Order: sequence, then structure tokens, then C-alpha cells
Amino acid sequence: MLDKIGFENGLLIETICSTENPDGSPHSAPIGVKRAGMLLSIDKLFKDTITFENLVRSGYILINLLDDIETFYLATFSDLPREEYDKSYSTRIPPLRRSNAFIEAELVNFRDRDNFVSVELSISGILIRKMKPCFFTRCKHAVLESLIHATRVPVFRRIDPKEAGSLMKLILHYRDLVSRICPEEPYNRIMNGIVNRLRDTQI
Amino acid sequence: MLDKIGFENGLLIETICSTENPDGSPHSAPIGVKRAGMLLSIDKLFKDTITFENLVRSGYILINLLDDIETFYLATFSDLPREEYDKSYSTRIPPLRRSNAFIEAELVNFRDRDNFVSVELSISGILIRKMKPCFFTRCKHAVLESLIHATRVPVFRRIDPKEAGSLMKLILHYRDLVSRICPEEPYNRIMNGIVNRLRDTQI
Repeated sequence: MLDKIGFENGLLIETICSTENPDGSPHSAPIGVKRAGMLLSIDKLFKDTITFENLVRSGYILINLLDDIETFYLATFSDLPREEYDKSYSTRIPPLRRSNAFIEAELVNFRDRDNFVSVELSISGILIRKMKPCFFTRCKHAVLESLIHATRVPVFRRIDPKEAGSLMKLILHYRDLVSRICPEEPYNRIMNGIVNRLRDTQI
Repeated sequence: MLDKIGFENGLLIETICSTENPDGSPHSAPIGVKRAGMLLSIDKLFKDTITFENLVRSGYILINLLDDIETFYLATFSDLPREEYDKSYSTRIPPLRRSNAFIEAELVNFRDRDNFVSVELSISGILIRKMKPCFFTRCKHAVLESLIHATRVPVFRRIDPKEAGSLMKLILHYRDLVSRICPEEPYNRIMNGIVNRLRDTQI
């Protein structure tokens, strides 16, 4: 099934992982998930995250597979509002409404690595919701790379300003790329949103 | 139909375009294709390319939509061998065997811009071949960005060494990313292949 949906062995994919808060509401965050045979892994899950707390407490995670860049943008900088979720299927956690598929997984074990853990997950279910002929877009990935870098810039500004500078350079490179090759909605707007956020953080 | 397959208005997608050589054999090259309403456009098609010659002569192009990075790697640096194509459907040009969909298009007009042209195409057919739940992978796109930059490095080394240096820096950034997050086949091998090719060009 994993092969069939294109999630090849060894491949790291960018997902939005949903976990259950103590009050039963869902929490989502963009997380890279790698396939290792029939198991999945999260290489670096920081301990100061809600995802870590929820995963350790409930032992359960719903991995949304999607190619909607707007949802990644929303999930990177804020809690996703309830309307971004669909009704739940078999489990208590609802999938994101724009997800193309989701994987239900359970915590097998985690290795402690100081301020983060490496997580191993077993798959309990896969549901395909939307299928399309997949192709490459530079625009969407310029935004995705910028989102990933953007979460690290404020941290590195405190502990490694040179690395923060390198990441900012990459983000500005992607903003130029997007404004040149895909100035249409939503790409340019999101790129400007990312750059403005980082500018505000700096002040 | 374009909306249905995720090819939204204004979106630039990375495709492999096939055209027909004078002897009837197919020729393929990676080309960015943008949607503008119900028309498609290629912003920069260089006049010294086989694609340009074939398109102007035959007035016809087959646009392969695919997310197979190995095919992009092969098509960037060499002619695709016959076994990379399937049998042809309605037209004389066969689609690539790893394409998820293809669009048949006809030349509407082109604007002359010195050493390149801007091309406008009308769609005569769309065929969906393989569908999957689409998602994002940093690895595949690191390779794709590197392939796009790699074709420009040798040119810029002659006319703008500083720009060539910037592109090389980006490629090395992607090689580091790939070797860190997806050292599995085929990503690392392709990245090393790209860097080695550029090293050979330099000598």
C-alpha cells in the first residue's frame, strides 16, 4: 500500500501530523515522516512541542498527506481552526479536510536525544481520499522550503546568527523565484507573509 | 479538467515536453509550462534547441506530467532512450512510460525575443494515466532544483561567473540536504552525479 501511494522506502515526506489534546481537540503541526520498511519514523521531535506531549500521552498520531501549500502555511505559524478538519473516521482524531490521504499510526518506541526524541511508529491504517496525476512545481516547493527554514530562523538568531543569515538568504532567494515565476495566488502572498513575519520577529 | 488534475490557473509546472524529430522519432526535454486560462505557455524557449525546431516545424507538442525524478535526470543531460517511451496513443508522439498524465497541445503563436521565444499553446487533449494521493518531498525537489540550476551553470561560467558561483552554492546546499535527509536511492546518487558533471565541465 505504501509503495502504491508513492511513499517509497527511505523516502522522507513532508506531512502535517495531528495528535489529540487532553481535552479531545486535535492539534496539528508540519512534520517530516520517513519510511523505514513497514515502520515510519520521525527523526527529530522536539520535547517542548504539543505533538510530543500528545503522542507520548495517547500513543497515537494521524499523519496527513497533502500537497496544499496554504494548509502548510497556516499550520506552521498557528493552530489550525476547526474548519480545516473533516469529521473523524474510525479514530477520535479528524483528518485535515484538504488531505489527499492519511496514515493512522501508533507509537512503537522513542529514543531520547537530549532536547528531542527519535520516534518509531507502526501503521494501523491508511485511507486514500483524493487522487491526482502528481507532478512537480517549483513554486509550491519554494514556499515549503521557506516555511521549513522560517521556523528555524528565530532560534538560530539567538544561538547561531551566521546560520540564521544563511537561512534568510535562502528564503529571500525563494521569494525572488516565486515573484518571478509564480506571482499568482497564493504563492507570492504567502512568501511575502513569511518574510514579513521574520522581519517582525527581528525587531 | 486542468483544475481537476491540480494544474491551477497561473501555476507553473515542471514537465518533460516531447516533440517529433524530422525522422519521426521523439525528442524530450524538461520544460516549465504555465497555465494561463485555457491556454498554456512556455515563457522562454531557446531557439538553439531541438524542441524549438520541432515545435515550429510540426506545430505540435506532447507535455508529460510526472513526478519521477530519475526521468528528469536522464532527460536533462541526454536524449531519452526509446525504452523510456510507451507506445503512442492518438498522435504520432509516444508519451513517456513514467508519465502520470500527458497534455497534447498545438502551437498558437510565439513572440520573438532575440535568442528565445515565448510560446502560446492550445490544448487538444489530456490523458490521465496514473493517479496517487500527492504530497511534498524535499528530496525530490532538491534534486529538481539542482537539475534546473545545473543546466545554467556552464552557460553562466562563460558570461557571469558570479551567478555561476551562486548557482553552484545552491546545488551544494541541496547535495548536503539530500545526503542528510534522504541518502537512499536514487536521490544521493543523482545529486553526486550532478555535482560530478559540473566538476567535469569546469576542467
